[in-house]
Amino acid sequence: MTRTALAFDENWLEPDELARLRRRLPMAYINAVPALLDDHGVPEKVGLLLRTGDDGSLVREVIGGRVRFHETLRDALMRHAEKDLGPLAFPSLPSSLNPFHVAEYFPTEGASKLHDPRQHAIALCYILPVQGECTPRQDALSLDWLTPDEALREDIVAEMNHGQEHIVKAALAYMGLLP
Amino acid sequence: MTRTALAFDENWLEPDELARLRRRLPMAYINAVPALLDDHGVPEKVGLLLRTGDDGSLVREVIGGRVRFHETLRDALMRHAEKDLGPLAFPSLPSSLNPFHVAEYFPTEGASKLHDPRQHAIALCYILPVQGECTPRQDALSLDWLTPDEALREDIVAEMNHGQEHIVKAALAYMGLLP
Amino acid sequence: MTRTALAFDENWLEPDELARLRRRLPMAYINAVPALLDDHGVPEKVGLLLRTGDDGSLVREVIGGRVRFHETLRDALMRHAEKDLGPLAFPSLPSSLNPFHVAEYFPTEGASKLHDPRQHAIALCYILPVQGECTPRQDALSLDWLTPDEALREDIVAEMNHGQEHIVKAALAYMGLLP
Amino acid sequence: MTRTALAFDENWLEPDELARLRRRLPMAYINAVPALLDDHGVPEKVGLLLRTGDDGSLVREVIGGRVRFHETLRDALMRHAEKDLGPLAFPSLPSSLNPFHVAEYFPTEGASKLHDPRQHAIALCYILPVQGECTPRQDALSLDWLTPDEALREDIVAEMNHGQEHIVKAALAYMGLLP
Repeated sequence: MTRTALAFDENWLEPDELARLRRRLPMAYINAVPALLDDHGVPEKVGLLLRTGDDGSLVREVIGGRVRFHETLRDALMRHAEKDLGPLAFPSLPSSLNPFHVAEYFPTEGASKLHDPRQHAIALCYILPVQGECTPRQDALSLDWLTPDEALREDIVAEMNHGQEHIVKAALAYMGLLP
Repeated sequence: MTRTALAFDENWLEPDELARLRRRLPMAYINAVPALLDDHGVPEKVGLLLRTGDDGSLVREVIGGRVRFHETLRDALMRHAEKDLGPLAFPSLPSSLNPFHVAEYFPTEGASKLHDPRQHAIALCYILPVQGECTPRQDALSLDWLTPDEALREDIVAEMNHGQEHIVKAALAYMGLLP
Repeated sequence: MTRTALAFDENWLEPDELARLRRRLPMAYINAVPALLDDHGVPEKVGLLLRTGDDGSLVREVIGGRVRFHETLRDALMRHAEKDLGPLAFPSLPSSLNPFHVAEYFPTEGASKLHDPRQHAIALCYILPVQGECTPRQDALSLDWLTPDEALREDIVAEMNHGQEHIVKAALAYMGLLP
Repeated sequence: MTRTALAFDENWLEPDELARLRRRLPMAYINAVPALLDDHGVPEKVGLLLRTGDDGSLVREVIGGRVRFHETLRDALMRHAEKDLGPLAFPSLPSSLNPFHVAEYFPTEGASKLHDPRQHAIALCYILPVQGECTPRQDALSLDWLTPDEALREDIVAEMNHGQEHIVKAALAYMGLLP
């Protein structure tokens, strides 16, 4: 599938052009909440990435990123999972591309629960059970596994980027783990 | 909500620019399958628009269109429903924005079940129960209500635009109406 | 459909026999969370029934009850909605019988989030948008419409029967209304 | 979790009593469609059990069975998966207990798409991705992996037990594999 996508010259966007497009069109995104399973395959913890935010502060995030031109949702999900969790995480892709939640990010503060000053993004949200070892790459400092109670602790929520605590809550509700 | 969107100059795109953007980014779309309910509120038929296609032939379609910059999914759904069904259709918006299906349209023929030569589009698909009277506007010739068996008849499927018979099948399966 | 069910003598169970069966088999249940929509069809509030509990205290509940032998899920949903909301509530049945949540009630306290001393029940949970006037019947004192914040207030949660605040939370998450 | 269940004497039912209860109450069931993934984790084939039916003919089935008193849905799913696929199948339990479909079996022929002369059963349907080796036990002769086209072939559909081809179709639609 990646092969077809590579044949498209238009696939790559220069940072300047991308920044401009982000103000013209809603961007198609995927978000994924890593889930750690117990011995019986029951989801037990969720994974949050710790990153240095644009203003130098520490922020927590779920996995996510843009869907490229001519890229399938599965390929985008796999690409961002590998980018954020490393090559040995062995995540299980969902059987169905029906998301458990759709997150709408708006650039106007207060217009919605999720806010991204760069863009209007529509993110399909998936659960990503992970069986291997996570070695977050790029600018992530760590991937921390948190119990539902920990993930909803006030100090953790305060660190969530773009209001993504709402995605975490929806994920916990979907998995039957919301306290 | 529409009010906020109107404040954005970037919301409007000239046809030329839109055509160019369609080759650079996946376009966020919504698709909606109108459903006619029986006296007990049980879905009974699905609605298909009959239009004149770009090459002059007759094509059948479900409701659909682009999500604009800074437009919510609900507003886009409402806007396209009104555009395609008229102002007196009184459709019921879904309680949740979780789609029953995500349709991926690619511009390369054969790359996927759904094909749109203009663009790569990612469409969130919803059921739209309709209680009022439909008076299709714009370029649609009619809205026809079909039973599940009729909607899957070979001649109807042959008329479906962009391979949208796959959306109709997914909708019927979701509603428990697939023959 | 009700007609077919009536043909079955086995449909009716004496209270004694029902009480005994509740200790032998998981009971098939439906639960429904009434939703009040705003002018644009967006869910805004959830409805909770106020009843006198078995021990005389006041308890709050969502709509619910047993699925009878040879009764369809739609018929059970309609029957319990009418029983709990009155004949003029005009609820919208869901397009699909896929529940937004499955609630498992166990008779052993602490075995699960939902606890029902009478029985093990498996409840398919649905959202029930309501457009008409609710006149709760039977033993319900009132149906109160609560905003998401109100529904999750500590004193309201403390009044919830059987731990059903977990169903309310799952419903709010599903509708994108969880604070 | 199994431990708690074992503490209940009522958990076990004699065949005679079970047969009688099947005519008094809807039975809570789980159904699971085994899915074989390709190298990229994308579902590719579905698994059907081949059994000798009650009348001696060969029938095909998905995984399924009763939920016992005080058994969780996850435990029931795991128990029936192991019973039908053997101990080395290593199925992945779903992240969420929200079923992709609810199947209603009625004892009256023609009352519904699914028919089970023994009982009224309400089955929560799940996809069960399988990574290990399947060695069907009990009375199953084999587990056959079929492509979507093969699973919907007329001769295969004719062999499906209880009308379960409708569950297979719903599963294929949910996974985006319906031809």
